[in-house]
Amino acid sequence: MSASEFEIIQRYFVDSGLGFPRSELELGIGDDGALLRIPEDKVLTMSMDVLLETVHFSSAADASLIANRALAVNLSDMAAMAAQPLCFTMGLVLADSSQQWLKSFSAGLLPLAREFNCPLVGGDTSRGSGLLNISIQVHGLCDPDRASLRSGAKANDRIYVSGKLGDGAIALLSLGLKSHLGEAFALRNRDLPETCRQYFDDAYYRPQPRVRLAQAIKHLINSNIDISDGLLGDLGHICRASKVGANVFLPQLPFSDSAKCCVEADNLVKAALFGGDDYELCFTVAEQHCAEVESIAAGIGEEISCIGEIVEGEKLSCLDHDGREQKFDGHAYMHY
Amino acid sequence: MSASEFEIIQRYFVDSGLGFPRSELELGIGDDGALLRIPEDKVLTMSMDVLLETVHFSSAADASLIANRALAVNLSDMAAMAAQPLCFTMGLVLADSSQQWLKSFSAGLLPLAREFNCPLVGGDTSRGSGLLNISIQVHGLCDPDRASLRSGAKANDRIYVSGKLGDGAIALLSLGLKSHLGEAFALRNRDLPETCRQYFDDAYYRPQPRVRLAQAIKHLINSNIDISDGLLGDLGHICRASKVGANVFLPQLPFSDSAKCCVEADNLVKAALFGGDDYELCFTVAEQHCAEVESIAAGIGEEISCIGEIVEGEKLSCLDHDGREQKFDGHAYMHY
Repeated sequence: MSASEFEIIQRYFVDSGLGFPRSELELGIGDDGALLRIPEDKVLTMSMDVLLETVHFSSAADASLIANRALAVNLSDMAAMAAQPLCFTMGLVLADSSQQWLKSFSAGLLPLAREFNCPLVGGDTSRGSGLLNISIQVHGLCDPDRASLRSGAKANDRIYVSGKLGDGAIALLSLGLKSHLGEAFALRNRDLPETCRQYFDDAYYRPQPRVRLAQAIKHLINSNIDISDGLLGDLGHICRASKVGANVFLPQLPFSDSAKCCVEADNLVKAALFGGDDYELCFTVAEQHCAEVESIAAGIGEEISCIGEIVEGEKLSCLDHDGREQKFDGHAYMHY
Repeated sequence: MSASEFEIIQRYFVDSGLGFPRSELELGIGDDGALLRIPEDKVLTMSMDVLLETVHFSSAADASLIANRALAVNLSDMAAMAAQPLCFTMGLVLADSSQQWLKSFSAGLLPLAREFNCPLVGGDTSRGSGLLNISIQVHGLCDPDRASLRSGAKANDRIYVSGKLGDGAIALLSLGLKSHLGEAFALRNRDLPETCRQYFDDAYYRPQPRVRLAQAIKHLINSNIDISDGLLGDLGHICRASKVGANVFLPQLPFSDSAKCCVEADNLVKAALFGGDDYELCFTVAEQHCAEVESIAAGIGEEISCIGEIVEGEKLSCLDHDGREQKFDGHAYMHY
């Protein structure tokens, strides 16, 4: 750790208030490691996501937005595990980041860290000559046997998603970042209405980790994942881990008004199925629990949509209005 | 996670055997998060280190050596916390890394992971256009109240270090990597004897995490840190955290034969005090426990050297043969 690294950590990641206390934390930032006491009745979970400049965020983006997104996508993994966030660590490779940038970055972490009671407890920074690079690891606490895994889906489960789908992929276009969906995946018009542009900025940089939803329904769901690679890719992970198939009802996919405003219908579907970056939950529920899950979600103001069903076999099919199977070109992000 | 990322993780980090089981691990790689049950009588510790191509390793280095170093420097933090390693996670930003490179990298992680019973339990990979970048977080288990912190040093403690000092900094010269110690810090001759070159390669890429030593003496030491920034920087951390000063006896600094062979005497001292990358332990021991600590270390074949004493105040002094204080030019890595 160089002197400047030492100062950076002290100024922006300790003095900034990110390392606030919580009862499990016996020792936070500042020694060779943090010390945490894990409650006897909990299981520890952890997940790491790496975000890279130009790949996962624009070089021109505001530092506080980059910070928000970096922490949010990690907290989304905690939602996928039905875990209560506990704390996070961060590895930063800084290029020519200014003090102003670091101040804004640090400030951008604070609201989510506070909201989810998830203090920064350690990490490392390094000066590189290349691109900015952020590794965040979030730690959380699960109830034993209550972690919602990919492997629990059963035939006849209903498949649900939270929020809207496809906004993440369309946001890439709006932000001028590269999409892997090919040339045909484009905006209707390059000039988006300002409300839509703002909506996609928020969708991309301020995804909502669905921690509260996952906590509320964890006793009623059979499997769960967060959608980072597009619905089919992530639902495919559930199918593979659970040794089942799935039917997705395309007309039931939930889209935002801005998504419907800015891309053609076929690209809407493509964005949802293959796009990624939505950080919504995809979870499966036995039929007899669906009404209760829907009622709980409505009660806490979380939108969920039933978009399909788990079936026996190992085929993942997309069905149109008339129940006919729709084929899509193979996309790199469709694993299953 | 792209398809290729998925395949990379499966092939090189799951199928390779890095995710071997251990009893605390309820769920390893493959879901949104790992699940770990922490024994009731233990406290969890964690530490993250980021290694960046050209800064922390040479682009030309063998992938298995890079892997070994990346895991070793993180395990060294576990030694500094007197923790038993538990598991690790890894974030990789790959540039144009070939399958062969990944195979070698993965194979390079395995020996240390096995030796310290520290399986890989998760992580993330991303393709970047820039430099290779490795973030590793190691998790460990401490006895409550037995973690050896920076803050426990007391006046009259003796200061010990493990192994040899300065090899890390001299290895940078041998490897052609950049040292921050300035132009005057140089090899006697550019052409090193082959045995010395091999010695420094090993010192740099195969540092020995002193986990076993720390476990053996943790009940007898007052403070502990691993030397990553040079002795004075890291001893300075102990002094600051413990609100004490220290006298370092320069003639007692332990140097390797290769170090003595390849640099002049003043550069030897500079390498040890300001160089960094040694990943040896620096710990302090109350006088009445010194004999026992020395005997335990000798019994397990771990070299330790008494190199100074903790004093009241807040001054960190270096003393020569005659007890006279030696002054050094200010170096960035001297914090205290």
